[in-house]
Amino acid sequence: MSYQAPLRDMRFVLHEMFDVGAHCELLDNGLDRELVDGVLEEAARYTGEVVAPLNRSSDEEGVTLVDGKVTTPTGFRDAYQQYVDNGWASMTGPTQYGGQGFPQMVAASFHEMLMAASLSFRVYSGLTEGAVLALYKHGSEELKNSYLGKMVSGSWTGTMCLTEPQAGTDLALLRSKAEPQADGSYAITGSKIFISGGEQDMSENIVHLVLARLPDAPAGVKGISLFLVPKYIAKSNGAPGEKNTLSCGAIEHKMGIKGAATCVMNFDGAKGWLIGSANQGLACMFTMMNDARFQVGLQGLGIAERSYQGALSYARERLQSRALTGAAAPDKAADPIIVHPDVRRMLLTQKTLVEGSRMLSAYTARQLDLEHGHPDPAERKVASKRVALLIPIVKSFFTDMGQEVASLGVQIYGGHGYIREWGMEQLMRDSRITQIYEGTNGIQALDFIRRKLLGDGGAELNALQDEFAALCDAQAGRSELTDLVEPLQERLHEWRDLTAEVLAASNRDPQEIGACSVDFLQYSSYLLLAGLWLQAAARAQDALDAGTGEVDFYTAKLHSARFYMRRVLPRVSSHREMLLGGADCLMALPEAHFAF
Amino acid sequence: MSYQAPLRDMRFVLHEMFDVGAHCELLDNGLDRELVDGVLEEAARYTGEVVAPLNRSSDEEGVTLVDGKVTTPTGFRDAYQQYVDNGWASMTGPTQYGGQGFPQMVAASFHEMLMAASLSFRVYSGLTEGAVLALYKHGSEELKNSYLGKMVSGSWTGTMCLTEPQAGTDLALLRSKAEPQADGSYAITGSKIFISGGEQDMSENIVHLVLARLPDAPAGVKGISLFLVPKYIAKSNGAPGEKNTLSCGAIEHKMGIKGAATCVMNFDGAKGWLIGSANQGLACMFTMMNDARFQVGLQGLGIAERSYQGALSYARERLQSRALTGAAAPDKAADPIIVHPDVRRMLLTQKTLVEGSRMLSAYTARQLDLEHGHPDPAERKVASKRVALLIPIVKSFFTDMGQEVASLGVQIYGGHGYIREWGMEQLMRDSRITQIYEGTNGIQALDFIRRKLLGDGGAELNALQDEFAALCDAQAGRSELTDLVEPLQERLHEWRDLTAEVLAASNRDPQEIGACSVDFLQYSSYLLLAGLWLQAAARAQDALDAGTGEVDFYTAKLHSARFYMRRVLPRVSSHREMLLGGADCLMALPEAHFAF
Repeated sequence: MSYQAPLRDMRFVLHEMFDVGAHCELLDNGLDRELVDGVLEEAARYTGEVVAPLNRSSDEEGVTLVDGKVTTPTGFRDAYQQYVDNGWASMTGPTQYGGQGFPQMVAASFHEMLMAASLSFRVYSGLTEGAVLALYKHGSEELKNSYLGKMVSGSWTGTMCLTEPQAGTDLALLRSKAEPQADGSYAITGSKIFISGGEQDMSENIVHLVLARLPDAPAGVKGISLFLVPKYIAKSNGAPGEKNTLSCGAIEHKMGIKGAATCVMNFDGAKGWLIGSANQGLACMFTMMNDARFQVGLQGLGIAERSYQGALSYARERLQSRALTGAAAPDKAADPIIVHPDVRRMLLTQKTLVEGSRMLSAYTARQLDLEHGHPDPAERKVASKRVALLIPIVKSFFTDMGQEVASLGVQIYGGHGYIREWGMEQLMRDSRITQIYEGTNGIQALDFIRRKLLGDGGAELNALQDEFAALCDAQAGRSELTDLVEPLQERLHEWRDLTAEVLAASNRDPQEIGACSVDFLQYSSYLLLAGLWLQAAARAQDALDAGTGEVDFYTAKLHSARFYMRRVLPRVSSHREMLLGGADCLMALPEAHFAF
Repeated sequence: MSYQAPLRDMRFVLHEMFDVGAHCELLDNGLDRELVDGVLEEAARYTGEVVAPLNRSSDEEGVTLVDGKVTTPTGFRDAYQQYVDNGWASMTGPTQYGGQGFPQMVAASFHEMLMAASLSFRVYSGLTEGAVLALYKHGSEELKNSYLGKMVSGSWTGTMCLTEPQAGTDLALLRSKAEPQADGSYAITGSKIFISGGEQDMSENIVHLVLARLPDAPAGVKGISLFLVPKYIAKSNGAPGEKNTLSCGAIEHKMGIKGAATCVMNFDGAKGWLIGSANQGLACMFTMMNDARFQVGLQGLGIAERSYQGALSYARERLQSRALTGAAAPDKAADPIIVHPDVRRMLLTQKTLVEGSRMLSAYTARQLDLEHGHPDPAERKVASKRVALLIPIVKSFFTDMGQEVASLGVQIYGGHGYIREWGMEQLMRDSRITQIYEGTNGIQALDFIRRKLLGDGGAELNALQDEFAALCDAQAGRSELTDLVEPLQERLHEWRDLTAEVLAASNRDPQEIGACSVDFLQYSSYLLLAGLWLQAAARAQDALDAGTGEVDFYTAKLHSARFYMRRVLPRVSSHREMLLGGADCLMALPEAHFAF
C-alpha cells in the first residue's frame, strides 16, 4: 500500500485557512509561502519514496536484540541517514545549534507525513526534538555545548526514560536513584521500561533523559530530578567517547510498531548530569511533554490519512454487488463498492475526521509557534494558555480517531483487511499504542478537566468558544452556509451550558471530574472540528465566489463540511447525555462485586 | 491470562430470566435444570483447564503448511480429541445420527465459553454444526448415511466454501464449476479463499460444503448449487477412503486467530455430490447461515467476557495514583486503579455490554430452539420470524461490542495491554475478524433493514417493541425500578417513531436503506439490551423482595442496570440523529472527488 502526502489539502490548510506566509513573517524566520511549498514537496518525496516502502517489511522483520545490540529492520539505517543528511532531523532545532528553526506549523505537515509513512521508523527519532527542547531550556551551557549540536542534527537521538514497572501514570512511585559524584556528575541506577528507541543501530549515540531521585529527595513527585545520561559520553572534541554503564536488557514483543525497539533500559551506576534544578525534574520534563504529546497526536492523524488512502483506492477498484438504485457500471461484472451508501459513510467519516484533525493540528501548531516565538511576551502568554488547553485534545482525540479510522479501513477491505500483506490491519495495530503512551487518553482527559478547565474556571475554553461564536456570526449572513452555521450555533450554546454544568459538578464532587472527563473531552473535540469545518467551508465558498479554477476541489470541501455536520457532529449528543449520567452510577458498585 | 466461565451469571440468565427447565420440558428433550447445571460445570472445566491455556501459545506458534499438510498449534489435537471423546462436538447434533439433541439455549453457553477459551481452536469445529444442519435438512439419505454420523460425533469436521477472490459479499460473481459425472457425482473445479479449517491435522476427515455452478446454470445467484466434497471419500463401511483431488494451496497470514488455518482451497475436478436441488445452493446454504452467524455473535461475546475478566483482575491489583477523594488504600503505595471513575466507566461498560449481550444470546437461542422444535407448527413459524429479525443484530452487534470491549481491556492495562505476553491485545486481534466474516457487519445491517424490516413492513419489529412495552407496563408500578422503566418507556416511543421514519425513507429512496442501515441496527440493538436489562433488574428485585441469601449478587445486577440506562443507552441519541442526517450527504460527493 503506497502513500502519497495529501499536499493539496495541506496547502489549503496552511495557506488558505491559516496563512502560513503571514505567520512566518510575524515570526521573522525568513520563510515564505514558496519556500514552504518547496519543502513540503520534498518531504512528500522523501516520505513517500524512501520511508513508506519500508513500513510493511519492517512489521514482518521486526527488531532483534543479541548481546545487548539491537538490529533495526532492513532499510531503516539508510533511510535515517538520509533523514539526517537532508536536514529533516534539524528542521525545528534552534538555529544557534545548527537547527533550521522551522515553525511547528510547517514541521507538523512533515511529521504527519512521516507518521503515515512508517510509525515504527518515526519512533526512533520522535523524542529527540522534545529532548532538544528540554536540554535547550534547562541544561547547563557545558551540557548544551557537548550534546545539543549532535542532537539537533540527528546524529545523536534522544529518549525519555520515565516509566518503571511500578510507576507508569503515577511517577510519584518512581525509584531510580542518582548518587552525586565528586566530579559533579551523578551515578544513575535503576530500571526503566517501555523506552522507545532506548537502543538501536541507526544513530551514532543515544542521549537518555532520565528521571531519578537524589539521596535526600522528598517523597513523591516533588523529589524527582532530570538527568542527561548518554550511551557514549561526549568527548571534548564532540565525538562519542567512553561507553556508559547502561544497557538494553530486553525488548518488548508488541501488538504493533514491531519495527520499533521498545526497550527495558538498565542503568547501573551510569554517569549522568543534572538538567535544571534538583527535584525539579518533572517541570523540566513538562517542557518536552507538550511537544511529545503533539507528536503522538500527529501519529494518529498520519496513520488515519494512510488508512483513508488505502480504503479509498480499494473502494474504487473492488467490484461487488450492484448499487441500490440499479447498476452504476453496467459494463462491469459488478459496481465498485464506493457506490454503496454505507461504504461512503465509512469513507466520508474517515475523510472528514482526517481533514478536520489536520486543520486542528495546524491551528495548534500555530499556537505552539506563537507561544515560543511571538515578538510580544503578552501574546506568548496568551498562546501558551491556548496550547495548554489544546494539547490533551490533540493527543487523545487524534489517536482515538486514528484507531477508528484505521479500523474503518480494515472494514472497507472486508476479509482482505484482515490479511497482513494488504497493510490495513498493521495500521490498526500500530496506531493502538498511540492511545496509551505519553499519558493514556484517560489521563489526557483528566488533565483537560482538572488542570485546564478547573484550573482557570473555564476562562480559556470560554475564550475559544467566543472565537467560534464570532466565526458563526461572521458567516451567518451567507445563504450558502446557513445549513452549516445554524447547527453549529445551536451546539455552541449547548457546549457553553455543558461547560458550566461540568464545572459545577466537578466543584461539587471530585469524583465527577473523573466521571465526565472522557465524554467532555470528546464532546469538546467534535465541536472544535465543527468550528474548523465551518471555517474551511467559508474559505471554500470564498474561492468559489471569487471564481476559482478548482471548482471541484472547493465544492468537495463544502460537501465534506455538510457530511461532518450531519453525520459526525451528532456524536456529541450521546457524549453529553452520558456525562450527565453522573458519577453515582460509576461509584455505586463495590469493588468486590464487579466479579459477579 | 486465565479464563473462568461466568457460571453464576449464566445460571441467572438461563434459569431466572428464561427458565431453561420449562423450555426443555416444552421441547421434550429429557433435560432438566440440574442436568443443565451439571453440563455447564463440566463445560467450564474443559474450556477453562484444557482449552484456555492453549490460546496464548497458539498465537505465538501459529500454523504451518508444508507439502499441503497443515500443522496446528501444540495442544490443539489433544484438546480436540477430548472435545470429541467427551461429547462436546455432538451436543446439538440430531439424535438419530448419534447427536445429543441439546437445545441451543444450553449449547450457546458452552459455545460462549469455547470462544472465550480460544477462538482459534473453536474455528476448526465452528462450522461443523451448521454443515450438519444443511446436510440433515437437504442431503440425500445416502449422503446422510455416509457422512452425518461422523460429522455429528466430530470425528469429521465441516467447512463452508463460498468465497472466491472476485466473489465475497457478492456470490453472484462465483465461478467454481461442477461437471456432472456418469456415476451421479460431480467434478468440482475452482479456487476458494478464506476457508476456515480447510485443512488441518485434528480431525480424521474434512467435509467441504462447496458452492459451484452447473454447466447450464443461469447467471447470478440463481445458478449456484451446493455440493458435498470430502477430503477423503467415505467408504461403504464409514471409514475415510480415497483422497479427493482437492488441496490446500496456501494459508493466510492474518492479524489474529493465528492458531486457525485460513486456507486457499483448490478443487481440481474433485468428486462431489449435490446437496438439495440444482441451482438451489444459496437456499440450502442459508440453512446453515443463521447458525453460523449466531456462532460468530457468540465469538464476540466470549472474547468480550474474557477481556473483562482480564481487565477486572488487573484493575484490582495495579496500584497507581490516589483516588480523587483521597487515599482509598492508605496502607499501600497507591490505590488500585479500580478506584478511579474513568477506569470504572470502562469496566462497567465492558460488564454491562457483556451481560446484556449474554441475555440477548439466550433470548435468541430460545427462539432458535422454538423455530426448530416447538410442538406447534404455528409457533415454529412465529419463532422463525423472530430469529430472522435477531440474527443480524446478534452477529453484528455482538462482534462490534466484542472489539470495543477488547479494546477497553487493552486500555485498562495501559502500556502492558500492548505487550503480547499479557494476552489482552490478542483478544483485540482475534475478535477483529468477527466483524467481517460470515457477512460483514455492514451487510448484516443491510439484511436487517432490507429483508427483515422492509420485508414485512416492520411487523415483526413492532411485535418485539410491543413485548418490551408490555414489560415496562408490568414493572411500572414498582418504585424501586422507576428510574429504569421511565427512560426505557421514553426510548420505546422514540424507537417506534424512528422505525416509521426509516420505513418511510427507505420506501421513498432506496439509497436511504443503505444510508440508515448501520445506525438503525445499532440503535435497535441498544434498545434490545435495555429491555433485557430491565427484565434482569425485575428478576433481581423479585429475588430481593422474596428474601435471598445473595443480596450482593442481585444488588449488583440493579447497579449494572442503572449504569447501562444512564451511561450506555444514551448512545442511541447519536445513532438516531446521524441516520436522520439522510442519504444526500453520503451521495453528493462524486466518486472522483473523494481523492481531493
